[in-house]
Amino acid sequence: MQQISWIEAAPGVWKIRTGSPVGLTPLSCLNRQPRIEAMAELPEGQLPLRQDEIGMSVLQAGGSLLSLPLEQDEKLYGMGLQFMRMNQRGRTRYLRVNSDPKQDTGETHAPVPFLVSSRGYGILVDSARAITFYCGSALRQQEDAAAQARDRNMDRGWKATLVSDQLEIRLPQDGADVYLFGGPGMQDVVRRYNLFCGGGVLPPRWGLGFWHRVPTLFRDDEVEREAAEFRARGIPCDVIGLEPGWHSASYPVTYEWDGARFPNPAGFVLRMKEAGFEVNLWEHPYISPKSGLYNEMQPLSGNYSVWGGLAPDYTMKEARELYAAQHDREHVSLGISGYKLDECDGSELTRNSWMFPAHASFPSGHDGEQMRQLYGLLLQDMTDRLYRDKNRRTFGLARASNAGASSLPYVLYSDLYDHRQFVRALCNASFCGLLWSPEVRRADNAEDWVRRMQTVCFTPLAMLNAWGDGVKPWSYPESEAIVRHYIRLRMRLLPYLYTVFAEYEAKGIPPFQAMPLALSGEKRDKEAPTGTSGSGASGKHASPEDFDTVEGAYGKQSAREWDDQFCIGRDLLVAPLFAGESGRDVLLPDGAWYEAETGVRHEGGRIVHVDYPLERMPLFVREGAMIPMMPAMDHVPAGESEIPVEMIHFGTKPSESVLYDDDGFSFDFEHNGGSWRRIVVAQAAGGSFSGDAEPGGPGSRYRITGWRFGQTCLPPE
Amino acid sequence: MQQISWIEAAPGVWKIRTGSPVGLTPLSCLNRQPRIEAMAELPEGQLPLRQDEIGMSVLQAGGSLLSLPLEQDEKLYGMGLQFMRMNQRGRTRYLRVNSDPKQDTGETHAPVPFLVSSRGYGILVDSARAITFYCGSALRQQEDAAAQARDRNMDRGWKATLVSDQLEIRLPQDGADVYLFGGPGMQDVVRRYNLFCGGGVLPPRWGLGFWHRVPTLFRDDEVEREAAEFRARGIPCDVIGLEPGWHSASYPVTYEWDGARFPNPAGFVLRMKEAGFEVNLWEHPYISPKSGLYNEMQPLSGNYSVWGGLAPDYTMKEARELYAAQHDREHVSLGISGYKLDECDGSELTRNSWMFPAHASFPSGHDGEQMRQLYGLLLQDMTDRLYRDKNRRTFGLARASNAGASSLPYVLYSDLYDHRQFVRALCNASFCGLLWSPEVRRADNAEDWVRRMQTVCFTPLAMLNAWGDGVKPWSYPESEAIVRHYIRLRMRLLPYLYTVFAEYEAKGIPPFQAMPLALSGEKRDKEAPTGTSGSGASGKHASPEDFDTVEGAYGKQSAREWDDQFCIGRDLLVAPLFAGESGRDVLLPDGAWYEAETGVRHEGGRIVHVDYPLERMPLFVREGAMIPMMPAMDHVPAGESEIPVEMIHFGTKPSESVLYDDDGFSFDFEHNGGSWRRIVVAQAAGGSFSGDAEPGGPGSRYRITGWRFGQTCLPPE
Repeated sequence: MQQISWIEAAPGVWKIRTGSPVGLTPLSCLNRQPRIEAMAELPEGQLPLRQDEIGMSVLQAGGSLLSLPLEQDEKLYGMGLQFMRMNQRGRTRYLRVNSDPKQDTGETHAPVPFLVSSRGYGILVDSARAITFYCGSALRQQEDAAAQARDRNMDRGWKATLVSDQLEIRLPQDGADVYLFGGPGMQDVVRRYNLFCGGGVLPPRWGLGFWHRVPTLFRDDEVEREAAEFRARGIPCDVIGLEPGWHSASYPVTYEWDGARFPNPAGFVLRMKEAGFEVNLWEHPYISPKSGLYNEMQPLSGNYSVWGGLAPDYTMKEARELYAAQHDREHVSLGISGYKLDECDGSELTRNSWMFPAHASFPSGHDGEQMRQLYGLLLQDMTDRLYRDKNRRTFGLARASNAGASSLPYVLYSDLYDHRQFVRALCNASFCGLLWSPEVRRADNAEDWVRRMQTVCFTPLAMLNAWGDGVKPWSYPESEAIVRHYIRLRMRLLPYLYTVFAEYEAKGIPPFQAMPLALSGEKRDKEAPTGTSGSGASGKHASPEDFDTVEGAYGKQSAREWDDQFCIGRDLLVAPLFAGESGRDVLLPDGAWYEAETGVRHEGGRIVHVDYPLERMPLFVREGAMIPMMPAMDHVPAGESEIPVEMIHFGTKPSESVLYDDDGFSFDFEHNGGSWRRIVVAQAAGGSFSGDAEPGGPGSRYRITGWRFGQTCLPPE
Repeated sequence: MQQISWIEAAPGVWKIRTGSPVGLTPLSCLNRQPRIEAMAELPEGQLPLRQDEIGMSVLQAGGSLLSLPLEQDEKLYGMGLQFMRMNQRGRTRYLRVNSDPKQDTGETHAPVPFLVSSRGYGILVDSARAITFYCGSALRQQEDAAAQARDRNMDRGWKATLVSDQLEIRLPQDGADVYLFGGPGMQDVVRRYNLFCGGGVLPPRWGLGFWHRVPTLFRDDEVEREAAEFRARGIPCDVIGLEPGWHSASYPVTYEWDGARFPNPAGFVLRMKEAGFEVNLWEHPYISPKSGLYNEMQPLSGNYSVWGGLAPDYTMKEARELYAAQHDREHVSLGISGYKLDECDGSELTRNSWMFPAHASFPSGHDGEQMRQLYGLLLQDMTDRLYRDKNRRTFGLARASNAGASSLPYVLYSDLYDHRQFVRALCNASFCGLLWSPEVRRADNAEDWVRRMQTVCFTPLAMLNAWGDGVKPWSYPESEAIVRHYIRLRMRLLPYLYTVFAEYEAKGIPPFQAMPLALSGEKRDKEAPTGTSGSGASGKHASPEDFDTVEGAYGKQSAREWDDQFCIGRDLLVAPLFAGESGRDVLLPDGAWYEAETGVRHEGGRIVHVDYPLERMPLFVREGAMIPMMPAMDHVPAGESEIPVEMIHFGTKPSESVLYDDDGFSFDFEHNGGSWRRIVVAQAAGGSFSGDAEPGGPGSRYRITGWRFGQTCLPPE
């Protein structure tokens, strides 16, 4: 065992340094300032571990092992964009970036080495190496193993995965800085982590509208025609994404417009803007020999290539400047709103072996493993700064990320396409400062299509990606009306979503939350709700076991993780239905909840069952909520146009809430604070309600047009 | 670049040492003697590479990189039991042991770091570390990358995987011994490798009979009843396997008989032997606290456990002796014929995370990574020696292996179950000194069942594994006759199979061969056959492209690898059909070939098409072949009983062949040479044939009962 020295790095955050870590790490490459003032407003950070319980030992095969005790029922969440399970207790998680994360190994697009424990602490390894977390998966022989041995022959309690009482983290040879984040609750841990990393991102308002990506080889006139059809059909849309074909050559890319498909890019972007569409550009990091950037970038690139293109060393200032100048000149100055950063997530362990190898070397002295782990972050950061420098917010998509990403204006996506995995990824992203879009592509049938479209309308980035299949919201005529309804509902909820993101930005509160996180925010370190429904047959017992991961004797999961529902902010709960289902169980937090479109009221703190036709998805609003709604406009109005907002109060009691607003596109809010308005609903002696809103602050665009009190469902359009 | 020094380690084998490799390696742990005399009979070993073409450089992140040039059309085979493809050119192969190899990364049950190039050389890294081979997958930017860049937008020739002209192998930090094996042909390379590793295995004769594994919790009387039913139904069977339930506790295991299910093991084994059945026992390496071995083995075990059991350090003599003494006393001395060595193939990257971690430490000083890579070899070697010491041959199953395994009496298997992958694994095993059984378990339907059973009857170990599902050869009544026919045909071909294995043992010739290997044996360094069939519509062009792996623009494979057919020895070619197929293309080597059960003759050196009903599988016999056949006996006769053999000569020409024979169960052949008989078929002037066989040598059991000349198909029973 080595001696460990701690320092307090920020309020409630402690740092342990092991070895002599040098060079590139996720936090150092982003270099964001911790939001110390906001952190100070959190409950006092506490660690449920004593310093002497944390061990460090040198490993013979290189590196060192950090070990922490685990309690019997402790659950371990996070570790990036995991698709296969939520509670990682009992699993070994190998946190390497991987573009094709089909197996449950820990590898993923965003392998964030940050873990959140149900005991109320978090642990971050700030390293550009692929780190392995043994989440109570390695059973030490001397201490706890023999007692757990059971007979698979006859004992039905035999488990393929036993539970060790030790969390072990294998640290790289050159050492690493390890950060411990105090609670007391899991949501406090996550907020502290997000704020330490610079706070959450506040997207531009248009970023929360609907997105559509057109087929890869579309010409400008085809794009405009397809965009116009959204308007004609009354389907809101704010962003049109262009796919590889906008480049003059792609795979590897030029970053230059194809002259045949886009003869006048500036005119195209302008016409799109005039029609209310922002344009987003697909790209990847590998520069074609046909690109004007090639020659200058060549000496600034790694010694291995991808698809014949350069893999630039974006840890180098010169490379970043070349990239930024070209992107500014060719895209940003034309009005392009942002990027989709594809394929920055390769590893060696993929079928096509397309990525540069771990042993690649880069001019800065970094190697391929480090560069692969951080490529996604580097690209996100470069493009963010490109817009920041112009006091414009961007919002886009990235296929790779890592630690410290909460302040970056990017949403993750994947070529995987399992609807349940997509919802689970959304849940898991909330533990790690990540956002995730379960983008919709083709569907097996109209039912699958509708269920996916319903889900995506309640996620950080509501997008249809017709890159390969040309699908459109009206592709299944029998369900066009349902899809239109939910895209319009998304648009109507935009003021609510915007406030939720503002609380992410300022307070580090994840805008979308997995159930364990949502519950810990309510009740800090209390357990999940228990009890039975008071009102009839639909109620079931819920118990802490409902959050447990138990493998049966033949590897089947026997307890439910509730990784198929989530909360948006404090007051909305989304419980998607999946193709083949006509109903589902829903775990409701304490309090009362209304089915948002039927008005049925449920006591919370229990599991309820709902049966819904295809036309509806289960969406719940908390009693006492104040949901600000705007009309289902075609798109977010540009410039200083006013946005009418109606205030919808739910339930039978007075309430207090906030409504955030600002200009919707600049960073002025960072200086002027934006418009935080306290909203108060009071109840007179006779029971009648009245509402009061503070006046709008800097940049405010909202005009409150009316109030509805004591509602049980969202008003129809 | 480092200076590389070479020494000739054996005829046609050169060794390069890098770093200071110490301790455990595959070759050192097996410690088999190279078969120098047999190697001297191979064509002179040649390397198609000059010493100065091989580079070695130190990597910043640790370890070093060995690099060799690749030719444009060079194909790279081997690297262990690969399921996903045969030609690994263009792929990065990470050779870590893995029990659940569902993705195409290189990880597998038997990650042998031995590669065979179509240029006619082989390369082995003798290391207990997980080695990464970049099979022309890493494109260096300066040299070859830019020229390959193509435009995925418009160029249909775009590929997800480009082809680099360099093979790179990342060697571990402490170095490794690297061996280069000369050709000239690929089959010469593989033979040289097998002989260098100690030669091939010659199984006991009973090992080539049919195997059946009974359900896990069967009692002795249930086993005997099921065994008797094989006899009653006329289905040959030589080996009955017992699954976990024979242990008094299992997962982890005791290695001790369960008193309730097997109250009198010695009597049970004896009765089985009297009925003509060998008994094989399932086990895994993890010792239960309930085992009598536990206390003594505990200090000799790793510091992490598996399923609560000990993971013994079998690199230590004391641990091997404890294991051997217990197994000898409890099993071998009772007449148990061998083992199925399960779950010696864990890694961290599995869903259940059940294996000890890479950072585990063992009393010998080795770590978990090393022990995991070699656990399968260590267990195979220990049990082999247990029988060797008694001058008895064993034959069994193992789920993990590594380099140097050709002389070990074990056949690999997997929990995977894709029929095509199973056939491909058989092909790939042939490049690396491995044997593979596509064991049959349940089936989706009777057709799938029949196709799987037909395939398994032409593989190294013909086995039905009813462990979990209780399936029997007669479980699908409508197809029992077909299954019986092929199991009986397997039995009748046993003299042919036994000779084929003897040539593996003595000459290193793989008994089962992938097509590139079979063709290279025929024609050394010539290309695959080309040309069209002369006789009608079934012929198609075959070209070198037929062995190529080309990924289409969207990742689909566009050229055929012929990894779905294989040769047994020189004269049989097996082309399995898969459920849903009524016919298939077959690539025939040069010469003429007969459909073994219909007698249809085909010119070889081309691709032919055959349509077969479910009752038949495509099996071909080479013109000029001499196939020795025995009756479809219930089982291989014990002791010194005579075995009647009929000699079946195919085609229109005289021929010369060998027939191998010995006592079938001891190692006496290693001293007395066994019985190699030259078989000559002469043709008189009038065209009539006569046959002559040398007299049988030491241990011979065969009595030649007759000759059939000029046959076109195998005679019916």
